[in-house]
Amino acid sequence: MSTSSAASNGCATAGRPSSGCPSSVFSEVQTSRLRHSLPLPSVLRKPFNVSDGPPSSAAGNPDEIAKLFPNLFGQPSATLVPGEGLKKDQGLRIGVVLSGGQAPGGHNVISGIFDYLQECTTGSTMYGFKGGPAGIMNCKYVELTSEFILPFRNQGGFHMICSGRDKIETPEQFKQADETASKLELDGLVVIGGDDSNTNACLLAENFRGKKLKTRVIGCPKTIDGDLKCKEVPTSFGFDTACKIYAEMIGNVMIDARSTGKYYHFVRLMGRAASHITLECALQTHPNITIIGEEVALKKLTLKNVTDYITDIICKRAERGFNYGIILIPEGLIDFIPEVQQLIGELNEILAHDVVDEGGQWKKKLRNQSQQLFDFLPQAIQEQLLLERDPHGNVQVAKIETEKMLIQMVDTELEKRRQEHSYNGKFNGQSHFFGYEGRCGLPTNFDANYCYALGYGAGALLHSGKTGLISSVGNLGAPVEEWTVGGTALTSLMDVERRHGKFKPVIKKAMVELEGAPFKKFASLRDEWALKNRYVSPGPVQFVGPTANEINHTLMLELGAQA
Amino acid sequence: MSTSSAASNGCATAGRPSSGCPSSVFSEVQTSRLRHSLPLPSVLRKPFNVSDGPPSSAAGNPDEIAKLFPNLFGQPSATLVPGEGLKKDQGLRIGVVLSGGQAPGGHNVISGIFDYLQECTTGSTMYGFKGGPAGIMNCKYVELTSEFILPFRNQGGFHMICSGRDKIETPEQFKQADETASKLELDGLVVIGGDDSNTNACLLAENFRGKKLKTRVIGCPKTIDGDLKCKEVPTSFGFDTACKIYAEMIGNVMIDARSTGKYYHFVRLMGRAASHITLECALQTHPNITIIGEEVALKKLTLKNVTDYITDIICKRAERGFNYGIILIPEGLIDFIPEVQQLIGELNEILAHDVVDEGGQWKKKLRNQSQQLFDFLPQAIQEQLLLERDPHGNVQVAKIETEKMLIQMVDTELEKRRQEHSYNGKFNGQSHFFGYEGRCGLPTNFDANYCYALGYGAGALLHSGKTGLISSVGNLGAPVEEWTVGGTALTSLMDVERRHGKFKPVIKKAMVELEGAPFKKFASLRDEWALKNRYVSPGPVQFVGPTANEINHTLMLELGAQA
Repeated sequence: MSTSSAASNGCATAGRPSSGCPSSVFSEVQTSRLRHSLPLPSVLRKPFNVSDGPPSSAAGNPDEIAKLFPNLFGQPSATLVPGEGLKKDQGLRIGVVLSGGQAPGGHNVISGIFDYLQECTTGSTMYGFKGGPAGIMNCKYVELTSEFILPFRNQGGFHMICSGRDKIETPEQFKQADETASKLELDGLVVIGGDDSNTNACLLAENFRGKKLKTRVIGCPKTIDGDLKCKEVPTSFGFDTACKIYAEMIGNVMIDARSTGKYYHFVRLMGRAASHITLECALQTHPNITIIGEEVALKKLTLKNVTDYITDIICKRAERGFNYGIILIPEGLIDFIPEVQQLIGELNEILAHDVVDEGGQWKKKLRNQSQQLFDFLPQAIQEQLLLERDPHGNVQVAKIETEKMLIQMVDTELEKRRQEHSYNGKFNGQSHFFGYEGRCGLPTNFDANYCYALGYGAGALLHSGKTGLISSVGNLGAPVEEWTVGGTALTSLMDVERRHGKFKPVIKKAMVELEGAPFKKFASLRDEWALKNRYVSPGPVQFVGPTANEINHTLMLELGAQA
Repeated sequence: MSTSSAASNGCATAGRPSSGCPSSVFSEVQTSRLRHSLPLPSVLRKPFNVSDGPPSSAAGNPDEIAKLFPNLFGQPSATLVPGEGLKKDQGLRIGVVLSGGQAPGGHNVISGIFDYLQECTTGSTMYGFKGGPAGIMNCKYVELTSEFILPFRNQGGFHMICSGRDKIETPEQFKQADETASKLELDGLVVIGGDDSNTNACLLAENFRGKKLKTRVIGCPKTIDGDLKCKEVPTSFGFDTACKIYAEMIGNVMIDARSTGKYYHFVRLMGRAASHITLECALQTHPNITIIGEEVALKKLTLKNVTDYITDIICKRAERGFNYGIILIPEGLIDFIPEVQQLIGELNEILAHDVVDEGGQWKKKLRNQSQQLFDFLPQAIQEQLLLERDPHGNVQVAKIETEKMLIQMVDTELEKRRQEHSYNGKFNGQSHFFGYEGRCGLPTNFDANYCYALGYGAGALLHSGKTGLISSVGNLGAPVEEWTVGGTALTSLMDVERRHGKFKPVIKKAMVELEGAPFKKFASLRDEWALKNRYVSPGPVQFVGPTANEINHTLMLELGAQA
């Protein structure tokens, strides 16, 4: 147990600003954000009680979920309603942990919990576990004080306590968590994370309750990918900011493309599992071509189909005199293409046992379709597939730069068409990957407010004795004062997957719904965007002024569709 | 002569918004910028006269410059001063052209000229030449009207009339320009461009005057690279915006690096000739390592020196527990390294005559030092040098991704040190290139105001009969009202270079001065930034609020140093 170990990755350390740890240096904009005060939903500004809903079930296989969560299954969701208020003379000991990749707003969740404890309880203590769930297991933490939290308010990043990707899974690891909870006499723990981390949060809640430990667990929906959402949790935090940062860059590149008239910009965007970011950026900027992974999967498109789709539009644009354009591609595109998965599976098998001979005899071991696909791939990608392996000897799919691969394949196809006299334009592809730039930006007003309410609400849920809920803030299309606050039973979001012969609980990722309002709007406009140039440049995120409180298109359309 | 040819690269075409040309779709921020009204220096808001200074000379070789510009050499610079005003009842016919790469604010220069003509003359006409200087030679233009210009006010990009990189050089081309000037009865032409384009503008002014054509020429200082500046022209437009956009991204990546604690981000920034962008971004964000090309050149550093400098800092950081960081690299780095230039020269020579044998016999033709350097390069770069040639058979230096090359070289060096037990950290390099994202962003308030004054002033200079001047707006550290406005003799910025046995006039690029205030400030802080983490995240450009009118560090420091 330690609060004084060296901050190996630069996590802030309370009270030691000059000890080699990063001290805070702020830009003017950061300083103005530090001073920015946050509105709270009106239900949180007056005394409130927690009202329970009806018993809950599960997203799928309720019987299995009931077996996996015997102490939690069926518990109702909770809503904060005006009332006489919770008892204030109760000091709580609360821990918080950041889990997984960064998302703008995480610091405001922590600020929200802290402010709740300050304002609605007496003599509470708050701990930040350092470096993610490993911090819980190793009992590495820092006590969070007003002074400590101050420089992180409304700021991006997770560097206040840092994050990590470890999971608390084995009985031994749960035991470590129990020890930490007991040692710190934790009344509650807030887990800020994505679908996996919230599943883990629920398992931890079940574990503590099963062992009759007093520690309660509340989750918070975090992921820039936007794939953790449901009716009660309309969006995950960070998505709004990240998409706006990417859209700013895309808009700038669009204007550049139009000004020079000679480049096709292929922009790969984050989102390995779901294409929400790509879709949202398309709605914000109106690119000529947008590939949505879920549509590729549903229509069982091949890589050749995708290449042809892009090439066809480039040819039509060339006929109109446009030899430039913008193409958005989700990071996880090739994971959505069944034939690619098949090829990679076969390659892993072959390369585990055989030598790749220069004559290409090894290729005969590929099935027909896979062999064709392999030959269709650009040489650089072929080499990457054969040479770059992970420590288990598997092909490193994640390392394939999909945007560069597509540029080469489109170029080859265009050359073919040029020979056939069906294309007479110029093609010059430029590749971009917008990733790290968006994960740690200063949170937009929306994310700043949303996170603060999520954290404040999480504090209230713990105070009222709740566990196994995910903090849920709703009615997000309305002004902040009218937002609803509560918690949703994590078990109600769960289904099971069979892994290694056992049922594992999972919160299913929310994929882009082809029948959902955002995709339908995109689909109704994309043909026009393809040939005419309807580019929109969203510009940089504004924190003050008339444009400062806009909400992303995906959320607005989904809220409208629900209404 | 045509105003109706198809807009081949999407340039806006007056009066035909629905003809396949891009129609305007605006984001909320773009719309708010459209409505934003621009302040003018007070000297432009009241009647003014133009006051001439003393005769001018040249930046170097005045005798040669005098021979090259017999009609213009020695003319005084001009300053606008309060007075009875120029005659208003004179209609002017003015053309404008955008030359070279995009820079935020170009549209505001055009708006400024237009507004000057509207407000200070009667019955003037303005033409925008399409696609750069080629538009002058081919007489491709569009008449600029109030309605036409409106949607481009305060917007990024050059797509109003588009730009191009052609030069008016040969006698035949000058004749074409004469014809266009005569056909349109141009009183004046404003050339918006960088050092080359302004040299060209001066040659054009000399040409017109020599032939006794009435067309006068005024230049405007444009380049995001910031390498066109002198005492009278304190900065080129676009530099402020581009640097702030890059710094936003760098700041975000920094926070990400600190939050995850596991990546070294190598960020390559625009600026092939000079490293002003890299230096400015460093001053804004405080990265751990910054390479300034001019310093590398002056100290005659080798690639191994640069690699060692980076590696040494990474090792020292590892000792402190920091296995992450941010490294800024100027795009033109390897152009600054003499040994690399030597190697490339030798390679071009060898590859023009010999076959590259797999056994490596060809390598023996390299001089010793070049052979060592070649062997020191990562394999991928070696292959790139040998395989990728331009149409003249030369090595394509510009295609070398310096940031990736450095990652590999640093990784190799760290591995060596690990074997020697002098390094025990983890190294994971991530590469970024921030380029196109910054050239077409919405101009900052500074660039919007500066460009508007440059354009408005250029109108005034033409109106007063001036030619061969570059629009010059000064006192930029003061509020806009106090800015000075005038024109500087382009010949006074010139020197000559000997090319193909002839003297060619050139405006020398303004390089980073190691004795200048910006570099000195950087140099005084970089050791602290290297080991401690003083990261600053500038955040997105703000257009309203307390942070909206900040000016970049380079300009402020240079203004301060002059004072």
